[in-house]
Amino acid sequence: MRTYSIDLADVRIDDAFWNKYIRLVTKEIIPYQWNALNDRVEDADPSHCISNFQIAAGLKEGDFEGWVFQDTDLAKWLEAVAYSLSYEPNQELEAQADAAIELIGKAQEENGYLNTYFSIKEPGKQFKNLKEGHELYTAGHMIEAAVAYYKVTGKDAFLKIVRKNADLICDIFHTKPYENAVPGHEEIELALVKLYEVTGEKRYLQMAKDFVDRRGTRPNYLSEESSHLDFVDVWHDANPYVETYGQSHLPVRQQKTAEGHAVRAMYLYSAMADLADAYDDGTLLEACEMLYQNVIGKRMYITGGIGSSGFMERFTTDYDLPNVGNYSESCASIGLAMFTSRMAQITRDASYIETMERALMNTVLSGIAMDGKSFFYVNPMEVWPPACMDFTSMGHVKAVRQKWFGCACCPPNIARTLASLGEYASFVDSNQIYINLLLGAKYSVKFGEQALTLTAQSELPWNGKYALQIHSADAKSGTCGTVSLRIPTYAVHPVVTVNKEVVSLETEKGYLNLNRYWKDGDVIELSFEMPPMLMHANPLVRADAGKVCIVKGPLVYCLEETDNGENLASLYVEENTPLEEFFESDLLGGVTVIKAKGKRICGKDWIDGALYEPRPVTFEDCELTFVPYCNWGNRKTGEMLVWVNGMH
Amino acid sequence: MRTYSIDLADVRIDDAFWNKYIRLVTKEIIPYQWNALNDRVEDADPSHCISNFQIAAGLKEGDFEGWVFQDTDLAKWLEAVAYSLSYEPNQELEAQADAAIELIGKAQEENGYLNTYFSIKEPGKQFKNLKEGHELYTAGHMIEAAVAYYKVTGKDAFLKIVRKNADLICDIFHTKPYENAVPGHEEIELALVKLYEVTGEKRYLQMAKDFVDRRGTRPNYLSEESSHLDFVDVWHDANPYVETYGQSHLPVRQQKTAEGHAVRAMYLYSAMADLADAYDDGTLLEACEMLYQNVIGKRMYITGGIGSSGFMERFTTDYDLPNVGNYSESCASIGLAMFTSRMAQITRDASYIETMERALMNTVLSGIAMDGKSFFYVNPMEVWPPACMDFTSMGHVKAVRQKWFGCACCPPNIARTLASLGEYASFVDSNQIYINLLLGAKYSVKFGEQALTLTAQSELPWNGKYALQIHSADAKSGTCGTVSLRIPTYAVHPVVTVNKEVVSLETEKGYLNLNRYWKDGDVIELSFEMPPMLMHANPLVRADAGKVCIVKGPLVYCLEETDNGENLASLYVEENTPLEEFFESDLLGGVTVIKAKGKRICGKDWIDGALYEPRPVTFEDCELTFVPYCNWGNRKTGEMLVWVNGMH
Repeated sequence: MRTYSIDLADVRIDDAFWNKYIRLVTKEIIPYQWNALNDRVEDADPSHCISNFQIAAGLKEGDFEGWVFQDTDLAKWLEAVAYSLSYEPNQELEAQADAAIELIGKAQEENGYLNTYFSIKEPGKQFKNLKEGHELYTAGHMIEAAVAYYKVTGKDAFLKIVRKNADLICDIFHTKPYENAVPGHEEIELALVKLYEVTGEKRYLQMAKDFVDRRGTRPNYLSEESSHLDFVDVWHDANPYVETYGQSHLPVRQQKTAEGHAVRAMYLYSAMADLADAYDDGTLLEACEMLYQNVIGKRMYITGGIGSSGFMERFTTDYDLPNVGNYSESCASIGLAMFTSRMAQITRDASYIETMERALMNTVLSGIAMDGKSFFYVNPMEVWPPACMDFTSMGHVKAVRQKWFGCACCPPNIARTLASLGEYASFVDSNQIYINLLLGAKYSVKFGEQALTLTAQSELPWNGKYALQIHSADAKSGTCGTVSLRIPTYAVHPVVTVNKEVVSLETEKGYLNLNRYWKDGDVIELSFEMPPMLMHANPLVRADAGKVCIVKGPLVYCLEETDNGENLASLYVEENTPLEEFFESDLLGGVTVIKAKGKRICGKDWIDGALYEPRPVTFEDCELTFVPYCNWGNRKTGEMLVWVNGMH
Repeated sequence: MRTYSIDLADVRIDDAFWNKYIRLVTKEIIPYQWNALNDRVEDADPSHCISNFQIAAGLKEGDFEGWVFQDTDLAKWLEAVAYSLSYEPNQELEAQADAAIELIGKAQEENGYLNTYFSIKEPGKQFKNLKEGHELYTAGHMIEAAVAYYKVTGKDAFLKIVRKNADLICDIFHTKPYENAVPGHEEIELALVKLYEVTGEKRYLQMAKDFVDRRGTRPNYLSEESSHLDFVDVWHDANPYVETYGQSHLPVRQQKTAEGHAVRAMYLYSAMADLADAYDDGTLLEACEMLYQNVIGKRMYITGGIGSSGFMERFTTDYDLPNVGNYSESCASIGLAMFTSRMAQITRDASYIETMERALMNTVLSGIAMDGKSFFYVNPMEVWPPACMDFTSMGHVKAVRQKWFGCACCPPNIARTLASLGEYASFVDSNQIYINLLLGAKYSVKFGEQALTLTAQSELPWNGKYALQIHSADAKSGTCGTVSLRIPTYAVHPVVTVNKEVVSLETEKGYLNLNRYWKDGDVIELSFEMPPMLMHANPLVRADAGKVCIVKGPLVYCLEETDNGENLASLYVEENTPLEEFFESDLLGGVTVIKAKGKRICGKDWIDGALYEPRPVTFEDCELTFVPYCNWGNRKTGEMLVWVNGMH
């Protein structure tokens, strides 16, 4: 049985590293995105999202504009608002959200159907294009948002709207023509599990299970759909449906490699994990474990980025992790965090947290500018700005974060993820708290009948210093419970003390389970070394052969042109000299930079402008400065490089 | 004033290296492509080309199938047939060609219009989509074929057909709505110059000049075309027209960098060179020289490949020459050979020949299998077959040559180029022959009134040995004339003798001009060393930093998995050890292989399957075997690599 998710009201993050991001959600991203949804951001593509709802609600004239899944922008915004209200009540914002929910209700059709694209453009022609129409995907995001909003505010207007829609879906997708139908883009499966959890209504869980069980079976609904007489063509794509793209190539329990569109894959695997637990389904859990091993063992960037192909935003093949032109969508790493978080909850194995942390702290954070106003969809492993040209095969790679995307899945997805970080940071069980992320926070837990507050202080990711103090009204006999503290694998020489007394470091699946009677003022301290390290990739990763990457704890580092001059590709790290670290409080909000001795290919030899010559290469000494990958692109526009040539 | 092109009847190539390719044209490619045009090649996409002509001619029912420029497949086939008939008469083949020409005549409309796509699918709606419709491009290929067929056979049926079409074009494109119109895909410009050359009709030359002069001026016809009321949408492309794609961003005389679709660019530059000469237009020639310098100095692969982006098959930016996923279309290198050949004719500068030779002997030859039955469209700089997956950003890169392409521009283009190799190998002028390619051949020339035969024997590209013997009926006093022998820049310690007497090596623009009274039996001999060399790229080519490439004379070498085992990316060349060469008569039709000492990253260290670890890299010694790039992919399917890690 899995651990419980912590109630977001029970965790309040206060951490030097994370505060700047979490504050952004409330102060910058949510208001900014509200403007974006209402087409009020200058120099950015209009979203049309609110406008579409107003048209569908009959409040104004006009045609649908934007992507077929444009409604999800509002759903993700509402989900982020809900989370933000849980730790920072805001009446004005809540009123704004309530009004938006009222608008959604007005746009809902009589029978419960809810999707402005089809209501406006194809009225009555619903669920006639599951592979491209995104109706179930959109419904899923609406459900996730409604569940979050209900849990935080207790208001059930939004929940009623999505239940009506979910009921319709449960009906329709058990009628004859749809008995083998599945969503083209997975998402509703995990959302229906959440809806079941707050409502107790078993049919939602069953519908999720049916969607997952049907996927990849024959006859393949998605492959055959475009031959249906009532098929509604959305994207006019002449290509045949690529079954791997939507993980429909095999029944899910037979899938052993991560295939296709990376976001879809992660949302599917998340639901598979949920259902494996809910139905105690060992074969489904085994499939999840196997898919996870394939991802982290063969198909994941060191930054936690997944889905290397720019075309179709998809997984390709084992060890195919090109650094030039890689995709690594922010949303895919969010999906990886969702999947691994669930797997950790189910297996109580902190190794999943290691992957989750890597995805969150590198690729997801790199997705957002430090001012919260611009975003990366694609998270490159290297950037040379002149080559990031539109209308070339590098067109998807941007050297500068963009204000808002026409297809804007990433910005609101990053917002809802950061706003719910507490759920990733910790899990709870009866008389137990799991500390996953070693960040500063205040946790409210109950051990038995006794309420306790745990205050965590952290110097991570810069120093391996973490302390957790217990506050309890029961100062005398203490309260029995377990604090399960994750000891990261990157912790070198870790030492844990309780009230300054060293405790044995016998961990279980990466957690140190401290079970005792906790008294007011008890302090758990964890300290370890976290030196910068030179990493190599498995030589089967052809793109990284001969190259090195620097990491420090959970953070991957990179070179930027601002610190190292142009032509980062011509730089080498001397592999046998020590790496030095310096905390620079004024840089990028305060970061530890890493310096290494290096060499630079001498450009003077080529001053004649020759392109190819038999002349030898000469080198000059230089010092290299690395900054955290998550912070790249927040200064002058320039080159960036994660994997650097190594010199022996 | 430019040199003349040699008449193909006056040059007969007989060369150990080239014979196998040239014979392929007659023995394999022409019959094979005839079957392809008639949809009789199994396991290959049908061409529909002949079928389209039959439908347009009213000989059968049906709809047009294939690309909008499908007609050009037949044009290029006829052009190749013409060249092949010039050195190998074949009545059956000529009859086949005559029948095809008759069919073309029947498909031509009353007013001279000739294009099966528009005649069948959009009758009457002609020249309403110049940016995508390819009508002028197709007309250009028809003209080139008709000129070639006329020059070789003396038959003018085909020439009459294309003149009627050209006359229509000259009329229409000087009427008001078309006064600033230009082709979307350049080609007709250079074809009209050829048509002028055989007919003497000035208006063809003038039309070519007008098309070139109009390009890139404002108002920009191609950018504005889709807003015309009578615009015929062909490709339903919602994107705006990218002006650089078709070299329409600036008037051609102001263009200083090679931009856009590489084939289009080369065809344009070829016409610009032709017109610069025809009109003695110094500014146009200057633009050609500047564009050429940009290509060879900043935008060309060492193999003579151009156009690095898979998306839009286009040039990108200076020094952006990625080795993974590069495009380097076979047709683009053919275009480069066409352009440089013209520039050499005009300037009498052999440095252009160096580039032409590089393009022909590496990228163009790599485009065709050694059995002549399969072709590369894309010429990758490295291949790892599992990553060449359809529906990914590597989808255009094939590890194995393909039988025939739906869009089949390359195979017939390679065929016509190989069949006309004699025109690239040598130029003539009054009392002068330029020997460009040092290959075995027999040349018939006239010095004054005297006919001479020159027989060249060559050991290139394996050994620097070349001899040219003069056969003359005038054995006594001799015949005055100039043999201009190219001394390649890759010739180390070249020595030239005439009748065993060493002559001074004072070259002019790369040619040694031997002017004298030639007598029967005179022998010119050229010998030089041509050791394999380790090349580096300018450090501004980020993709090649730290890497080396091996060349020998005009040939670029590569590693193949067959010789070196898998994971070529894990191999290093020791930069300071000598390269050894071995001629292997049984390998790939007889090639010199090059061996080097190298290192291999030790895979044993990673036998646990870890993906990223701080463990150091260790190496083991190995021997590396390099084969000519033009011959890669003719054995077992496997990896291939041009730029290899260098170790100091």
